Amino acid sequence: MTMTGENIMHTVSHTYLLSIVPLDRESESPLYRQVYEGVRHAILSQQLKGGVRLPSTRDLADILSVSRNTVVNAIEQLQAEGYLESRVGAGTFVTSRLPDDLQYVAGAPVATTTYASGAPRRLSRLGIGYQRFLERRPVSYSEKPLRPFAPGAPDLNAFPFHIWARLIARYYQSLPLERFGYGQPGGGYYPLRQAIAEYLRASRAVRCEPEQIIIVAGSQAGIYLATRVLLNTDDQVWMENPGYGGAMGILRTVSAQLVPVPVDAEGLQVEVGIARAPNARLAYVTPSHQFPLGSTLSLPRRIQLIQWAERAGAWILEDDYDSEYRYSGHPLAALQGVDRSNRVIYIGTFSKVMFPALRLGYLVVPPDLVNVFEIARQVVDQFMPVVPQAALAEFIMEGHFSRHIRRMRKVYIEKRDTLLGEIARHIGDRMRPGPTDAGMHVSFTLEGIADDHIVTAQAARRGIVAPALSRFYLESETARQGLVLGFTGPSLDALQAGVRQLGAVLPEASRRA
Amino acid sequence: MTMTGENIMHTVSHTYLLSIVPLDRESESPLYRQVYEGVRHAILSQQLKGGVRLPSTRDLADILSVSRNTVVNAIEQLQAEGYLESRVGAGTFVTSRLPDDLQYVAGAPVATTTYASGAPRRLSRLGIGYQRFLERRPVSYSEKPLRPFAPGAPDLNAFPFHIWARLIARYYQSLPLERFGYGQPGGGYYPLRQAIAEYLRASRAVRCEPEQIIIVAGSQAGIYLATRVLLNTDDQVWMENPGYGGAMGILRTVSAQLVPVPVDAEGLQVEVGIARAPNARLAYVTPSHQFPLGSTLSLPRRIQLIQWAERAGAWILEDDYDSEYRYSGHPLAALQGVDRSNRVIYIGTFSKVMFPALRLGYLVVPPDLVNVFEIARQVVDQFMPVVPQAALAEFIMEGHFSRHIRRMRKVYIEKRDTLLGEIARHIGDRMRPGPTDAGMHVSFTLEGIADDHIVTAQAARRGIVAPALSRFYLESETARQGLVLGFTGPSLDALQAGVRQLGAVLPEASRRA
Repeated sequence: MTMTGENIMHTVSHTYLLSIVPLDRESESPLYRQVYEGVRHAILSQQLKGGVRLPSTRDLADILSVSRNTVVNAIEQLQAEGYLESRVGAGTFVTSRLPDDLQYVAGAPVATTTYASGAPRRLSRLGIGYQRFLERRPVSYSEKPLRPFAPGAPDLNAFPFHIWARLIARYYQSLPLERFGYGQPGGGYYPLRQAIAEYLRASRAVRCEPEQIIIVAGSQAGIYLATRVLLNTDDQVWMENPGYGGAMGILRTVSAQLVPVPVDAEGLQVEVGIARAPNARLAYVTPSHQFPLGSTLSLPRRIQLIQWAERAGAWILEDDYDSEYRYSGHPLAALQGVDRSNRVIYIGTFSKVMFPALRLGYLVVPPDLVNVFEIARQVVDQFMPVVPQAALAEFIMEGHFSRHIRRMRKVYIEKRDTLLGEIARHIGDRMRPGPTDAGMHVSFTLEGIADDHIVTAQAARRGIVAPALSRFYLESETARQGLVLGFTGPSLDALQAGVRQLGAVLPEASRRA
Repeated sequence: MTMTGENIMHTVSHTYLLSIVPLDRESESPLYRQVYEGVRHAILSQQLKGGVRLPSTRDLADILSVSRNTVVNAIEQLQAEGYLESRVGAGTFVTSRLPDDLQYVAGAPVATTTYASGAPRRLSRLGIGYQRFLERRPVSYSEKPLRPFAPGAPDLNAFPFHIWARLIARYYQSLPLERFGYGQPGGGYYPLRQAIAEYLRASRAVRCEPEQIIIVAGSQAGIYLATRVLLNTDDQVWMENPGYGGAMGILRTVSAQLVPVPVDAEGLQVEVGIARAPNARLAYVTPSHQFPLGSTLSLPRRIQLIQWAERAGAWILEDDYDSEYRYSGHPLAALQGVDRSNRVIYIGTFSKVMFPALRLGYLVVPPDLVNVFEIARQVVDQFMPVVPQAALAEFIMEGHFSRHIRRMRKVYIEKRDTLLGEIARHIGDRMRPGPTDAGMHVSFTLEGIADDHIVTAQAARRGIVAPALSRFYLESETARQGLVLGFTGPSLDALQAGVRQLGAVLPEASRRA
């Protein structure tokens, strides 16, 4: 009969089946999976055409020398995914519902980087910004945090990980189950927001209620979030010059227009900002400890800045990245605390006083922006991991946090004094320090060096991280030649050894210049 | 002498000092801090004018009845912050460097929500989008994850928190210190990327190398990240209709133009998408288990979708949010695995198979987009917390992960059967289930109900979460009336009780309609 003839003609041959299903009995992949993948690949690569009938599962098992169960498993999966169709009484067929041209579709299980055609692979404007950023991104200086002299790297040897591990483990086993589910507040775990608000009021003169605290994954996340809520593409932003590269990077990738505003011994030169961009939308500042120069924004400048922001309808981003570490007297009051017009978004981080891989920080936002920042947080990734927030709240409230800061202040004073002493002894006048009364790094100017990047490169060859000061400038014309040296991460021995290496590098670098 | 006369004239009086520094000896705030705050406030509120001389620290201590040390501490802080100035031999003066008009500046230590003037408080376009989203945001149905019937809520009672707590605590005490510092890879902790790549290749037929895995904070974070890299404002996006509200929310807030594409028993109707928006930039799909209807994207539609994307230069966002839970046979192969043109960005999450508050998920991105996605991740918040990633890698590699999934499949089958059985018994034909062979929820159509929101509202009054099916539609004209019921979170008893409540609600709701 014709019907039978057709079926016979279209039934796949035994030897052909063996060639398309090359079983490897040594592989970790189960046999059913290998049968499935072989047949699927044959269909997608059109070696098995639509309408072809497969042998019965009993015959298939014989041909491939596997159990019938293995075959049934594979066939069922291929049916569930639409590659095969069963017709009652007639058998199992390759689907006829696939298009003839399967050019952009493949069954091969390994990744391939070849692109089948020239159709454009379009990114967003932001995505193109990221790509440009990639092309000119300098080597990250923070990849080896324990080597001298990566700025901002805390001394992790001294962190009480045993206490922290105990707190975390306890909360994983004691928090109510609802706290592990969806629907946690976008602004953060409330007891942590309370603990932070209390800490900030007492130690930084920040004016805030717990609701104004938005928990984020570190200060970079805070800056990013603020740009999303406050900045449109091409908006002008005052940027400290020199300034923090991380903030510049974010502002550039979100296509803000950076207006360099110079910094002197009193911090940001507000008058220059007003002259250059009176209608900027935002000013990024580090008032307590200017990054990288180390100066403090003076009181008259603070007031001038707030008054400008109020007049211009601008926002102030106060990045208070390391001011827990002030070595004479108490930490300075935050700019936020003297701003009655609620123009300041204050950013703090636990990366410095706890450890960077914790990824917790916070914003203090004006009361009328609380809701919109909470939504912006939620859009990025719903809410923050809960257990680390709960553990941190207890860590603060039980006094571990203040104790650790007090202890680290002493450790860091010794390290700072070692760095300054060794430089005075081995290098002398060729390196002149900026302010040294706060923070985790010191900026130095270099005498007799025309290009500080040469020093950085030669230090890198000796395993030393010594970021060039000029690299933190937005424009090379005004850049001063110097180095920005972190002293908090390395041991005293490593600091001493590092300074000796620098001492050897400098004469070479000045000969080159 | 005139000089003395001036100083005397301008020296603040003793009684006045007592009035501006109201000490509270019961307060938790240290006395030095109270002195500091009182003087600071008096200066900022211009009760103490520039040039006024303060009494000596000894006199001040007497006047205020505090120790001299307390006064010295306060004065030093005020000097460091620029409120006071010392002149050698002449004493301590209020700074004259402040402007006369201190209208927008305040020293009051408590937050205030009054805004000093009408200067506009401008948000970005995105920020305004967030604000609009706030205004129309429906009540979150996931706030009570353990109540029936929140969709997507895992059964947290069964999660091995004791194993997890042990792993986390161990890694906090055993990972090398460098892993706690800055400079971790933006794409994620490499051993976790390896473990995920291996898992996806074996169980989902995803074609990938570890480098293509980008660790993110859950699937919402993954969707958000993809929109940042791939979408410009006003770009067209195909959105499944009905579809996942979380994705719609993100796409709306980033100002994408949503093109509703209807869904039937074979999933997304690709032809309708092509007719409505042939040049869309992106298609958002849930091919393994359509949210909320539960259908599987058929093989012909998969191929049609990939071929369209390649022709149009579009991207496909494959959200594979719960396909680990397939109750007959093995999980279905991912769309990503048949796409040779590398147009698919695959999104997976650990929120369902681990727990939501972990905040870990991943993207699988095409090889040529790895770098730009890594940068985009870094811009959002540098890198993900390291210890949970390390613990999760071990959890997967040591088999805890597969074991938990196998165990939960059995638990969830029993729960699904309970839900379906109870509904058949107590409610019958008025609720008709969609596909039930996979996932963590079932969608039902409602017979004889004109407005499913009434059912949702009345169920809510009885403490039951029963999201209306119509709410997942982008346009109300095509919306079907029904309910989307999660069955995985609640206990068997809670499911039974919940169905009885629903059974009581339905007659009321149909009378109202």
